[in-house]
Amino acid sequence: MAAPIPDLPILAEDDSMLTRKFGREVANYFSGSPLNRVSFLRGDHGFLSSAFSHPTASFLLMENLSPLAQDPTKLAYVEKSIVEPLTGSDPFKKTEEELLKEFNSDVAFPVILFLGIDEKKKSGFEYKDYRGAPYFAVDVTPKGSITEVAKGVIEAAKAKGVSFLPGTRHITLNAPEGEIPWFFVQKTTPADIGAAAIYAQARALLDWNARNPFCGGCGQKTLSVNAGMKRTCPPTDLAGVPEGGAPKERGPCPTRHGVSNLCFPRTDPTMIVAVVSADGTKMLLGRQKRWPPYWYSTLAGFLEPGESIEEAVRREVWEESGVTVGRVVIHSSQPWPYPANLMIGAIGQATTEGETINLGNDPELESAKWFPMEEVRDALLTGTSGLGEAAPEGYKEGGLRLPPQTAIANRLMDAVTGGFLAASKI
Amino acid sequence: MAAPIPDLPILAEDDSMLTRKFGREVANYFSGSPLNRVSFLRGDHGFLSSAFSHPTASFLLMENLSPLAQDPTKLAYVEKSIVEPLTGSDPFKKTEEELLKEFNSDVAFPVILFLGIDEKKKSGFEYKDYRGAPYFAVDVTPKGSITEVAKGVIEAAKAKGVSFLPGTRHITLNAPEGEIPWFFVQKTTPADIGAAAIYAQARALLDWNARNPFCGGCGQKTLSVNAGMKRTCPPTDLAGVPEGGAPKERGPCPTRHGVSNLCFPRTDPTMIVAVVSADGTKMLLGRQKRWPPYWYSTLAGFLEPGESIEEAVRREVWEESGVTVGRVVIHSSQPWPYPANLMIGAIGQATTEGETINLGNDPELESAKWFPMEEVRDALLTGTSGLGEAAPEGYKEGGLRLPPQTAIANRLMDAVTGGFLAASKI
Repeated sequence: MAAPIPDLPILAEDDSMLTRKFGREVANYFSGSPLNRVSFLRGDHGFLSSAFSHPTASFLLMENLSPLAQDPTKLAYVEKSIVEPLTGSDPFKKTEEELLKEFNSDVAFPVILFLGIDEKKKSGFEYKDYRGAPYFAVDVTPKGSITEVAKGVIEAAKAKGVSFLPGTRHITLNAPEGEIPWFFVQKTTPADIGAAAIYAQARALLDWNARNPFCGGCGQKTLSVNAGMKRTCPPTDLAGVPEGGAPKERGPCPTRHGVSNLCFPRTDPTMIVAVVSADGTKMLLGRQKRWPPYWYSTLAGFLEPGESIEEAVRREVWEESGVTVGRVVIHSSQPWPYPANLMIGAIGQATTEGETINLGNDPELESAKWFPMEEVRDALLTGTSGLGEAAPEGYKEGGLRLPPQTAIANRLMDAVTGGFLAASKI
Repeated sequence: MAAPIPDLPILAEDDSMLTRKFGREVANYFSGSPLNRVSFLRGDHGFLSSAFSHPTASFLLMENLSPLAQDPTKLAYVEKSIVEPLTGSDPFKKTEEELLKEFNSDVAFPVILFLGIDEKKKSGFEYKDYRGAPYFAVDVTPKGSITEVAKGVIEAAKAKGVSFLPGTRHITLNAPEGEIPWFFVQKTTPADIGAAAIYAQARALLDWNARNPFCGGCGQKTLSVNAGMKRTCPPTDLAGVPEGGAPKERGPCPTRHGVSNLCFPRTDPTMIVAVVSADGTKMLLGRQKRWPPYWYSTLAGFLEPGESIEEAVRREVWEESGVTVGRVVIHSSQPWPYPANLMIGAIGQATTEGETINLGNDPELESAKWFPMEEVRDALLTGTSGLGEAAPEGYKEGGLRLPPQTAIANRLMDAVTGGFLAASKI
């Protein structure tokens, strides 16, 4: 049975000059978070402590990057008493400075993320000018010295009748329903139906913390600070030091001098592009060998250092299909937390002389083809499904199959076949 | 004296539907590379070896990330004989597999980047279907066991009457002059006047290699492969092993199982936005305390994991200025190699109720203000200069000062004040 395809967020109607000229903004799946991240408060341990201890705080547990959920569409949150055996009652009590001084590379500690506050929930929590229900995520993966305690937390959570989502990619979670107003500070969407974006934030950050236990600059173990948004390389270590002894100096590290991007989460910008023919009647799609028969999608690839998005579009399209692209317009973007991609959706137009397909450069695609716009339009209505799923009901064998609405590829094709190209001045 | 402000690349005129609807594409400074990266050939040591040894190969030397240059606008390239004492005569002779087997963490080796081929130069170099003059960059920073040899290479290069550019930021290098045709495979710009983009690519990649000598996944030393585009964590090490002995097994590393983003260069996506007022008559600009008096620019900030570009724009603008932004349109992008940013230029429109400025959230800006469009337009004509430079001639004390054309901020302001907002359907 096909998993449910979540509804997509719809941004509020407005009549700004930008909307009149460019149309309504497209909010892609995994975007549209209902939380205000109040990122500037992540270093404020007074704020973090009181948010963590507030009775309305919600804790999302993740085990090996799978979230606790009520069902495939809804996340499940637990209260503080459930996570406390693992996190302690006030994990933000100590300042970053104190944590650095007490750093002991032999002691495991679960990563606790502060995700943001849901300002729509009149929770009674307030700190300075900010009000709303606090959201945290906790990595409860059993490992090292916290294995047994983490297992206990997992059992206590499961006793509530909820479970961790199976599988590794979770694209069944609800996106916000109804209209999202523009201002993230005035969201009307309650957090329980903005699940996809909350999960994306938590997954990306826990994964980054898990992948980077060591410092790329000096090779020594690092410490998670700023409620999960930074990893820092402590100058001393208490590992192996007898109780009450002075911490040992560690080797030098370049990240301790000035700001280093190594301390902050990485996001890999990736372009994905719907290429239209010079005359606007066809769209270029490609397929990888491992995909189901008749399945095609838009071309995509990572940006490289020292290149603009527009250049990456032209390079990747030429490398993968031999087609040369002229004007590139950036359409919308999508966070894609597997593990840390930012999908930048573009629409490009092939040049008149550049439409010949050649798969002989980079052999990444099994096939690349020009499809008439009508065929793509029809397939968007009758041939979309998740990659691992059966074709939808009514699909006729041999017809074009395409990715579902949760993929920005689908949204790009929808935009182009829906009239995005129509020149308004001609 | 003010450093020269380079001309900006101008993309070829075309009359595609996208151009008719959205206007001509803006190519920002540091983009517009004249080289074809042929990225799919970076793992092909036969290709790399023959490109490296071809008499028309050009080598850009960089010392502590400063490029060798003829003058502040033009890079200088040396021939193979100059770098050979450092690189050896055929550094790509061995395959990646062989290099991994022979890995010795005690032996320093300079990073050699393959940058691409200049297909406009009829150089006689060809490999399969690809023809053009090969470009490489070599890190000649004296360090560790290669200190003396590197110093010798530097002296030999300087003896040619060229020198490394002083300072740490180099924004005086030429961008392509005249029109760049769309297809990067048919560039008409010779590489010697596409200097900024070539430098940006080389700087970003050498910096990434230099910042990441250790593996973030396991803390062990890594090896630069794929002509500088990958760092891999070898399973064995010959350090301390007597001549002819078997290499020592190293500890396990998660990056050795499947593909890991830790092995590839990181690029940090950053949004930068020209926010216009709800009625389109004003622009929101901010200033940092350390900037010269009267200097303002557009707001900018790093994207966070699990957030779209559009969301990051709204979050950052609200955090830094209190203004709430509605529709966001992405305008153009710019690689910014200090150290690894991708500047994503956006234009956003404030909501009618959201124009009140509040600096009390994130105290990053000293001031944020709404400027009438005419004032911004005038300042683009009379008040731009590099950040460390004196105001331009004719500037009147107290007038608005803005960043130069090399900054995407300038291009965004230029687009907006030049009519980008004009709704074509009303």
